[in-house]
Amino acid sequence: MPRWDADAEGRLLKAAMELFVDRGYDQVTVAEIAERAGLKKRSFFRYFADKREVLFGGSPAFEQAVVAGVLQAPEATPPLDAAVMSLAAAGAELTSWGEPVRLRQQVITSSPELRERELTKLASLTTQVAHALERRGVEEPTASLIAQAGMAVFTTAFELWAAADTRNFHDLIHDSLERLRTAICRRSG
Amino acid sequence: MPRWDADAEGRLLKAAMELFVDRGYDQVTVAEIAERAGLKKRSFFRYFADKREVLFGGSPAFEQAVVAGVLQAPEATPPLDAAVMSLAAAGAELTSWGEPVRLRQQVITSSPELRERELTKLASLTTQVAHALERRGVEEPTASLIAQAGMAVFTTAFELWAAADTRNFHDLIHDSLERLRTAICRRSG
Repeated sequence: MPRWDADAEGRLLKAAMELFVDRGYDQVTVAEIAERAGLKKRSFFRYFADKREVLFGGSPAFEQAVVAGVLQAPEATPPLDAAVMSLAAAGAELTSWGEPVRLRQQVITSSPELRERELTKLASLTTQVAHALERRGVEEPTASLIAQAGMAVFTTAFELWAAADTRNFHDLIHDSLERLRTAICRRSG
Repeated sequence: MPRWDADAEGRLLKAAMELFVDRGYDQVTVAEIAERAGLKKRSFFRYFADKREVLFGGSPAFEQAVVAGVLQAPEATPPLDAAVMSLAAAGAELTSWGEPVRLRQQVITSSPELRERELTKLASLTTQVAHALERRGVEEPTASLIAQAGMAVFTTAFELWAAADTRNFHDLIHDSLERLRTAICRRSG
């Protein structure tokens, strides 16, 4: 993709998130997003089918990257590590976009409808991770349990990052995983 | 509550679930539910505000029971055990209703809209469990991680039960918890 293309998409994303945060998602039009990005309205539709796709358009690629990561992890990698490492890698890529991704989180948190949609996307991702683990030979319901534990680690790290935690994303993942392990591997007396 | 009251509510629940499974949630009217339960339409509204409340009306009471259970667990109980035991107790009560609860699960699975609503309810329950753990002195983000792990154990056990697993609900919880512990407490080499 030529450089100016990536720039236009990035400018649209940034402009959209800033407007959504300032004025509320429902109040912002595609024309306003394009204008703020210094582009024509029709340029918007070269990158996004509609306004909602600015928020959720990246989900399928993210899901594919995570599933590929789980399937490609070395055979000796325990399933939880395969899930968490794959989510960490995709998350590191996502968080490298910086501020627009933090703003996206704010926008989603602000709207019950967007939160419901985000929960559905996360549930779909969890199911896909469980299926990928099954293809690695993990039986159900263990695959689903591991997928959910991995997602808990990922969303915790991601929420810390979105709330402006300045640590490296991999460090946040490591910290969440250790917290979960410490809590779960402690047996009652 | 007098005996005939409880019976009427139970009959309405059962009639509603059977109709939803047979004909699809959207196709069923309140009048039909009441008729199948051998009641007048206005009796329906003594128990449920609308058709959706037949499916989700029990959520607040379930949430309150779980939160109370977490807060009342003995001080020495580790947080994950407090969460899981409380969810197990509320789940055992819920599953004691039997077939209508299994049918409810089928109805929800069949509709994307109802699934989204159920995910939102489960997310709310997870947040409430995390807050209850915080009140027991567990700091964030550990409280959220434990709440999510506990919910994974609960939903796994519940889905097994709903898919006609004949084991006692507490046994299903125990099995899910052991699977999770085995997977998570295994360290990569």
